[in-house]
Amino acid sequence: MHLRSKPWAKPWLEAHQDLVIPQDAATELRGSWQGQFAKQQPIHVEIGSGKGQFIMNMALAHPDINYIGMEIQETAVAIAARKSFDSVGILPNLRYIYGNGNGVETYFEKGEIDKIYLNFSDPWPKTRHEARRLTYKSFLKSYEAVLPEHGEVEFKTDNRHLFEYSLVSFMKYGMRWEADDYSMDLHADPDKVEGNIKTEYEEKFLAKGQPIYKITAHF
Amino acid sequence: MHLRSKPWAKPWLEAHQDLVIPQDAATELRGSWQGQFAKQQPIHVEIGSGKGQFIMNMALAHPDINYIGMEIQETAVAIAARKSFDSVGILPNLRYIYGNGNGVETYFEKGEIDKIYLNFSDPWPKTRHEARRLTYKSFLKSYEAVLPEHGEVEFKTDNRHLFEYSLVSFMKYGMRWEADDYSMDLHADPDKVEGNIKTEYEEKFLAKGQPIYKITAHF
Repeated sequence: MHLRSKPWAKPWLEAHQDLVIPQDAATELRGSWQGQFAKQQPIHVEIGSGKGQFIMNMALAHPDINYIGMEIQETAVAIAARKSFDSVGILPNLRYIYGNGNGVETYFEKGEIDKIYLNFSDPWPKTRHEARRLTYKSFLKSYEAVLPEHGEVEFKTDNRHLFEYSLVSFMKYGMRWEADDYSMDLHADPDKVEGNIKTEYEEKFLAKGQPIYKITAHF
Repeated sequence: MHLRSKPWAKPWLEAHQDLVIPQDAATELRGSWQGQFAKQQPIHVEIGSGKGQFIMNMALAHPDINYIGMEIQETAVAIAARKSFDSVGILPNLRYIYGNGNGVETYFEKGEIDKIYLNFSDPWPKTRHEARRLTYKSFLKSYEAVLPEHGEVEFKTDNRHLFEYSLVSFMKYGMRWEADDYSMDLHADPDKVEGNIKTEYEEKFLAKGQPIYKITAHF
């Protein structure tokens, strides 16, 4: 996703650093994220939260979980945070990090977060860009470094090639999953789609009749 | 696949036991299958060969491999064998077993066959029939017992649920695969479909525009 840069984004983010934590400040919070939230409860992180529909709706649907949307694109994180700020204010269980998913272990200690979501990540189709895919082994290593033992990574995509790639990458890394954690057409599986919160991309691809692939793998 | 029984099937099979080896005779050949073929070369087995289009065309395309089509249904194995007999005679590298895929280790010694094909196997959708699916763990154990170390199982299906089930079953059993060995839409992958030999079912589902799932997993 590439968004045209918005002139309001930078000043808006500077004025709302309590809601959207910049990369440097996020690094300093390593080990003390629970202090950012109203309640001490499990923290779930979406890496690449884009325009933020998923993470906001997750935070509204699950007040017993603290959520962090992490996004590297300034315009996207500003749109996401402003939209949630304008519609529901500062939720007690939702924060954003304006920063790089590559550095997840610089933000969190081992076990500080409980689950990672990857939704409709950039497929980086060229082989020479493999290392940029969010399911490449170096990313999996970072996720393992911040999740508890057997911690989960939940992954949705419309991109068949990225899904195939990711399955193999998970397997090579030694991650595992069960039949129930796996769908090649999420919205055709009544049992599996229950409670599903849709991203903006998911709505778009669904409307076109394309299948959504999903897997929840654990270390 | 359930076929109406054909009165000619039984006598035809009895008259062609050199081509279609009955279960009891197959058991006696354990350890000496190479003697059935013109040349000593790797043996590949299709479990559930149905009407036999795949195994016959594989045998014609790969004269350097010996093929065995195994089929439990009398009518199906008779149709398959008669069709190949009438069109190409007795090929030097193709035989059939009229017998149960469940007993694969009663027909072959460890390492006697090099590869197993499962094509469009019965999905047995009810959970209580799980143990009948050809990718259930007890079957995998049988396949492991007759294949060499790291031996391959190649699996194609149109059935998404059976494919999901089988992936998980392979993974739980400790089998592995690479990205190139895996496709969620075989006929949309020019690299992966090259050299593919279609089964009767595959042609039917392709004509309807349904994706064919394929995986080659190894122990």
